[in-house]
Amino acid sequence: MNRKVFQLLVDNSSGVLSRISGLFSRRGYNIESITAGVTADSRYSRITIVAQGDDEILDQIEKQVAKLIEVRNVKVLDPADSVYRELCLIKVEVTEDNRENLISVANIFRANIVDVGPESMIIELTGNQSKIEAFLGLLKGYTISELARTGLTGLTRGNSDVVWLDD
Amino acid sequence: MNRKVFQLLVDNSSGVLSRISGLFSRRGYNIESITAGVTADSRYSRITIVAQGDDEILDQIEKQVAKLIEVRNVKVLDPADSVYRELCLIKVEVTEDNRENLISVANIFRANIVDVGPESMIIELTGNQSKIEAFLGLLKGYTISELARTGLTGLTRGNSDVVWLDD
Repeated sequence: MNRKVFQLLVDNSSGVLSRISGLFSRRGYNIESITAGVTADSRYSRITIVAQGDDEILDQIEKQVAKLIEVRNVKVLDPADSVYRELCLIKVEVTEDNRENLISVANIFRANIVDVGPESMIIELTGNQSKIEAFLGLLKGYTISELARTGLTGLTRGNSDVVWLDD
Repeated sequence: MNRKVFQLLVDNSSGVLSRISGLFSRRGYNIESITAGVTADSRYSRITIVAQGDDEILDQIEKQVAKLIEVRNVKVLDPADSVYRELCLIKVEVTEDNRENLISVANIFRANIVDVGPESMIIELTGNQSKIEAFLGLLKGYTISELARTGLTGLTRGNSDVVWLDD
């Protein structure tokens, strides 16, 4: 069992998303996360899919995806040579007593507080998955009323001799 | 023509994504962006879909999506009462001459520089779509070699009497 991050460049046309996700589901594969958005060239979208499974089957799916005419490029991102990021919005119930404490935890993670109400706060956090998991772990004592994660997106690093600035 | 942000809570099962995106593509609707990730309860995923189109047809699609057994909840986010965020990774070609200038622009937007190589930089930017478009507009003089956007995710604000902290 392995976890792979596929990055596709596809034509910005209706149906392509359905065909790609169909290739995964027909083999009983659940897509762990998917993000799709336009690129610098509005004719194309970039889709990032995270899937977990048997190497051989993931290889087969990759080949089938590459055969779709709307798919211009497929690559499997190498964790050692890529920047991964995810965005997470978390609505947390707060009281007068625990609001300050929650703000402190958010500050440590350089999270942004984007909405404050009398009984709840919305926190925005960006990072790789382990950072987001760590933050969510610290919220165990709080009530999370809603949580929205974009799923992972990523890019390969520029060059071999890069300076790594990841947190 | 309207732009709508649908937020779905769905069972974390294979096939649901393909069926949902199929409902859009069968009517020739291109999904502008989609993000899907797990929620606080790992049995469910939250899917956020941005689609543009005729109000009546989008209403029909919404009803059909709601009928799928894996779909637990559908709501259309109200822009006036929601926080929207998107994450964007941008790889920009740089030289000795323009690196400093690019870093200044990134700082103004509170963007993070997550990778630096001799000939490129990767910038991470989080915000609503207009902020991201404004930043990309400022990069017109540079060469963007790669761009990955997660697509929009969002949450409804906590209460009616909230303090708005959006940028």
